[in-house]
Amino acid sequence: MNSFGTQFRVSIFGESHGECVGITIDGCPAGIPVNPEDFTADFNRRRSGGKGTTPRREPDQPKIMTGVFNNFTTGAPLTIMFDNTDTRSRDYTKLRETPRPGHADFTAWKKFGGFEDYRGGGHFSGRLTLGLVAAGVIARKIIAPMQVSSKILEVGGKTSIDEAIDEAVGKRDSIGGIIGCTVTGVPVGLGEPFFNSVESLLAHMMFAIPAIKGVEFGSGFAAARMWGSEHNDMFISTEGKTATNHAGGINGGITNGNDIEFRVAVKPTSSIHGKQHTINLVTGQMIDLEVEGRHDTCIALRVPVIVEAATAIVLADLKMLLAKGA
Amino acid sequence: MNSFGTQFRVSIFGESHGECVGITIDGCPAGIPVNPEDFTADFNRRRSGGKGTTPRREPDQPKIMTGVFNNFTTGAPLTIMFDNTDTRSRDYTKLRETPRPGHADFTAWKKFGGFEDYRGGGHFSGRLTLGLVAAGVIARKIIAPMQVSSKILEVGGKTSIDEAIDEAVGKRDSIGGIIGCTVTGVPVGLGEPFFNSVESLLAHMMFAIPAIKGVEFGSGFAAARMWGSEHNDMFISTEGKTATNHAGGINGGITNGNDIEFRVAVKPTSSIHGKQHTINLVTGQMIDLEVEGRHDTCIALRVPVIVEAATAIVLADLKMLLAKGA
Amino acid sequence: MNSFGTQFRVSIFGESHGECVGITIDGCPAGIPVNPEDFTADFNRRRSGGKGTTPRREPDQPKIMTGVFNNFTTGAPLTIMFDNTDTRSRDYTKLRETPRPGHADFTAWKKFGGFEDYRGGGHFSGRLTLGLVAAGVIARKIIAPMQVSSKILEVGGKTSIDEAIDEAVGKRDSIGGIIGCTVTGVPVGLGEPFFNSVESLLAHMMFAIPAIKGVEFGSGFAAARMWGSEHNDMFISTEGKTATNHAGGINGGITNGNDIEFRVAVKPTSSIHGKQHTINLVTGQMIDLEVEGRHDTCIALRVPVIVEAATAIVLADLKMLLAKGA
Amino acid sequence: MNSFGTQFRVSIFGESHGECVGITIDGCPAGIPVNPEDFTADFNRRRSGGKGTTPRREPDQPKIMTGVFNNFTTGAPLTIMFDNTDTRSRDYTKLRETPRPGHADFTAWKKFGGFEDYRGGGHFSGRLTLGLVAAGVIARKIIAPMQVSSKILEVGGKTSIDEAIDEAVGKRDSIGGIIGCTVTGVPVGLGEPFFNSVESLLAHMMFAIPAIKGVEFGSGFAAARMWGSEHNDMFISTEGKTATNHAGGINGGITNGNDIEFRVAVKPTSSIHGKQHTINLVTGQMIDLEVEGRHDTCIALRVPVIVEAATAIVLADLKMLLAKGA
Repeated sequence: MNSFGTQFRVSIFGESHGECVGITIDGCPAGIPVNPEDFTADFNRRRSGGKGTTPRREPDQPKIMTGVFNNFTTGAPLTIMFDNTDTRSRDYTKLRETPRPGHADFTAWKKFGGFEDYRGGGHFSGRLTLGLVAAGVIARKIIAPMQVSSKILEVGGKTSIDEAIDEAVGKRDSIGGIIGCTVTGVPVGLGEPFFNSVESLLAHMMFAIPAIKGVEFGSGFAAARMWGSEHNDMFISTEGKTATNHAGGINGGITNGNDIEFRVAVKPTSSIHGKQHTINLVTGQMIDLEVEGRHDTCIALRVPVIVEAATAIVLADLKMLLAKGA
Repeated sequence: MNSFGTQFRVSIFGESHGECVGITIDGCPAGIPVNPEDFTADFNRRRSGGKGTTPRREPDQPKIMTGVFNNFTTGAPLTIMFDNTDTRSRDYTKLRETPRPGHADFTAWKKFGGFEDYRGGGHFSGRLTLGLVAAGVIARKIIAPMQVSSKILEVGGKTSIDEAIDEAVGKRDSIGGIIGCTVTGVPVGLGEPFFNSVESLLAHMMFAIPAIKGVEFGSGFAAARMWGSEHNDMFISTEGKTATNHAGGINGGITNGNDIEFRVAVKPTSSIHGKQHTINLVTGQMIDLEVEGRHDTCIALRVPVIVEAATAIVLADLKMLLAKGA
Repeated sequence: MNSFGTQFRVSIFGESHGECVGITIDGCPAGIPVNPEDFTADFNRRRSGGKGTTPRREPDQPKIMTGVFNNFTTGAPLTIMFDNTDTRSRDYTKLRETPRPGHADFTAWKKFGGFEDYRGGGHFSGRLTLGLVAAGVIARKIIAPMQVSSKILEVGGKTSIDEAIDEAVGKRDSIGGIIGCTVTGVPVGLGEPFFNSVESLLAHMMFAIPAIKGVEFGSGFAAARMWGSEHNDMFISTEGKTATNHAGGINGGITNGNDIEFRVAVKPTSSIHGKQHTINLVTGQMIDLEVEGRHDTCIALRVPVIVEAATAIVLADLKMLLAKGA
Repeated sequence: MNSFGTQFRVSIFGESHGECVGITIDGCPAGIPVNPEDFTADFNRRRSGGKGTTPRREPDQPKIMTGVFNNFTTGAPLTIMFDNTDTRSRDYTKLRETPRPGHADFTAWKKFGGFEDYRGGGHFSGRLTLGLVAAGVIARKIIAPMQVSSKILEVGGKTSIDEAIDEAVGKRDSIGGIIGCTVTGVPVGLGEPFFNSVESLLAHMMFAIPAIKGVEFGSGFAAARMWGSEHNDMFISTEGKTATNHAGGINGGITNGNDIEFRVAVKPTSSIHGKQHTINLVTGQMIDLEVEGRHDTCIALRVPVIVEAATAIVLADLKMLLAKGA
């Protein structure tokens, strides 16, 4: 299903080349201030235009349709929509029978029996993350004083990002990257036992973001190569502060008051310039496919703000769950 | 909350040193054959006793309390329990004020206001995974012909596992490991759009298993260092078979008919022999703590069967969701 | 929360005098034909205009924003919106401090701390049922050959409905009514054990419709006055047909293949002409309130199509749940 | 599925003649005192033995398996079980092919393909309500100072209950009844908009109780025969107190601070002495069936404590939802 969360629940809808994309937030507390300019900075971070990103330029103007009255949330569902304007459907129709490698074309076709809106990735398009970013703007207000920040750690295996992009553009190829995320101001006790550990919920959400193929908390995969005596974080305050943070701020699935730390791996953009070999699903013949249209050289560049928004959404839900009680 | 799944829903309960641990499976289809001996092999794999694992030996005899009649599932909830017999509570009570590094002692104490059952990790104990393994036995029958297999890829950074264990035992320290999991016989179309991608659901479940700190699908973190032209899997059959499997069998969050491939990182066992520094939460003074009791040198050795069970549970749910329709 | 359903899940949003009202259907199978004219008949039935209903006339034009492509559902979320055009907000603002008897003014004010959109009932307006009717149009296609029909049994205690309305209009008062609903073509086996009995799910949904205050299945309250020998329905076919249908087609919470039969009670319209006594929540003084604006003399007249839609939505979900399996 | 609730979630399991019946409460706050004697009064009220109830006498001793430590809830799932001891399976096996009128025999057989545990109603038995009563004991502690009380209003259409029972026993027939429930001390604001109105949630739960066929709030079905001017409850205090309570304490689905008032209709016990006509599902021939075993003349007599428990469970969930916030 296309929704996530228990108390602060987001539901996403829309297609890349249909009328709109959007999101509904259900369970948002009443009285949160919401102004149009609140969204600007995060949308600018997500928007295309930088080196290595596609030149598609939507205005990305959020239309707050419901749930806000006199610039405050009302407690009713908050629906935010984005019109699709800069759509060039002709780029995509010829791909119908020849699934693009790395994309959801094949799986969507099979799962939805050919009824899916295939234009520009349809419901699988990265454009759907606009709604996540919008919901993240609201979520950040709810989770304060927690603050989420995310940044590129490397792209194409290099920390010199400009250089990596230039090389990929030169090769007409694409690259991926690794993104780190830190949450500060975290209270002790977020997370629910067993199945709804903080790691479980954050990872669930992260793997909903297109192109993410790995998630690790604290030392993550490196922890598997450490000694226990080295990995264990020594408590140094009665508030739970630890001398190191190999656990990424989470013990037993529950926040321990230290910063939450995690990293995600973003695969290289699936759309690349140049010929790729694929199969024609109708004729069964292998053909050469050239994916036209606009591509990001490195989609990872746009992902940090999405990771932040997604993280804030999960934490808003967990904070509201923590507030419950008898 | 302590449950997971939509159609095939597992709910876990119990404490390490209470009466029992157990699991309830809700939504299990009627007519699945269940016999006591079905559980033996998986429980033996999970049980302690091998080199590097704790000598605690519970009989691990599953008691099928409900939902099975004349050796077939009835369609009603299936509850399986395990009595706790070999419990030595005296080992743990002295730790009440001094949280063991790496454990959930501190976070549980704060989250539950001191009311948690702290004996032997209580509800956070790895013993809770017994229920997962039992549910996995049922789930495997449902997902056939899909088959899940999981194995240790390395421990303590080494592929020579015996050697790594010996070294850790010698140092009275602990080590972690990396486990790989493969699912064969996967149909196209498992997974739900956006938030319930196959990666999201599997990662959610994996991070519920104690000690897991990283999950990656297909090439995972390595994908972030590949070229797009290299990472894209070329389709070579109209059934979705690809020449390579860098995507781990999943495109757009949906299975593409290739094997599902993922890896998880297990941190070193938190309990180690020898002194550790920690804080006394009541006095606020740093003290030396020696964690008594029985420890696994490398908990990762017991995790493969749990990963398999957890994977089968998620896939059973997804298979049943796929079967729905109008 | 503002959503309902497991496999066929509806989420409602909007306010009476905001930008729009709408609904998102998640989990709708791909390949269901959807054309604009499919909605006309049901919207006409729901629309105001008849004797005893308010003269407010919205065009009620459904805007299918997402989830439909080339006139078929795609499998992605289907969002349908209705612009609000004929809104006269000035009618309502003066009521802010003086809650209208029978309405949600007071409870919304308290629950949402004064941040709720109070214009015309805001999110509590009967206008929100437009979305239900739209989703019902889709649901009816899914549940075929099941057919749902609903009709007024009595209003104001009379079966001569015209007469009852005339009397109420003459008295400048309002009246309620009782509505019967029948589902034909029902397969055996809809409904889930215990908490998700067919009665539970239908009643849950019915009580979401504003103004409904009672629900009874089969003989309902009259059953409490029957002998068991009289109430028990005798099976007369191996397909479950019974000679009578006192059970309303449901045994043990599960459909038995006979028609589902239930009735709902609709209270009199809360808004009436003429003075009513209420309290000013700020001054604490009792005052006379005259509710201006447009009122239905008998809101029950508009409810049958909503009951049908709501029933179809629940049955679509149950039918899809029934289809699951291993 | 066999669970209900969002924050305070109950999951029920077991069969009448299997090993046990039981319930798991997930989300129960830590620190609620629980002692064995807390359950005695409610179990005594539910137990068989009075005039018009079956002589089956189980000890009904609750076994608290998990989630309680040192007589307080721990915050982990609380599982309570009841052994089945006084089972006489031989009474039921002969009914396999001949569904008892009014029972779930036929629907269970069809839904579960013959794999259901048919002994004594199996999972559909009223014995499953033991778990509800146990959970209700915990829920009552959580909802204080709210108090729930329920009582028989009439049986077999008579308020002289002894007389009605005597007449039914004399006729070897069964009768139903109507039960009223009142909740005092209710805060303003319980209930969630639209689909999770207080009426929706309470009705959902009530219709899970076997034999309940009608639910009405406040004036209920009688409201459909009242004038609006008569039905509207006049507010007389700024806390929401009203002069009358035709709304049953609920406006717009949300509690208004007055008592919650509702009634449920209980059908006559399905099992009656004497011959009934039914069909043999294998041979297709109509036969005379005599239902052996122990029957309640009027199951409604046992239902008040179950209604109270079920109500307390719903209110515990709603109270915890109300406590959430940012």
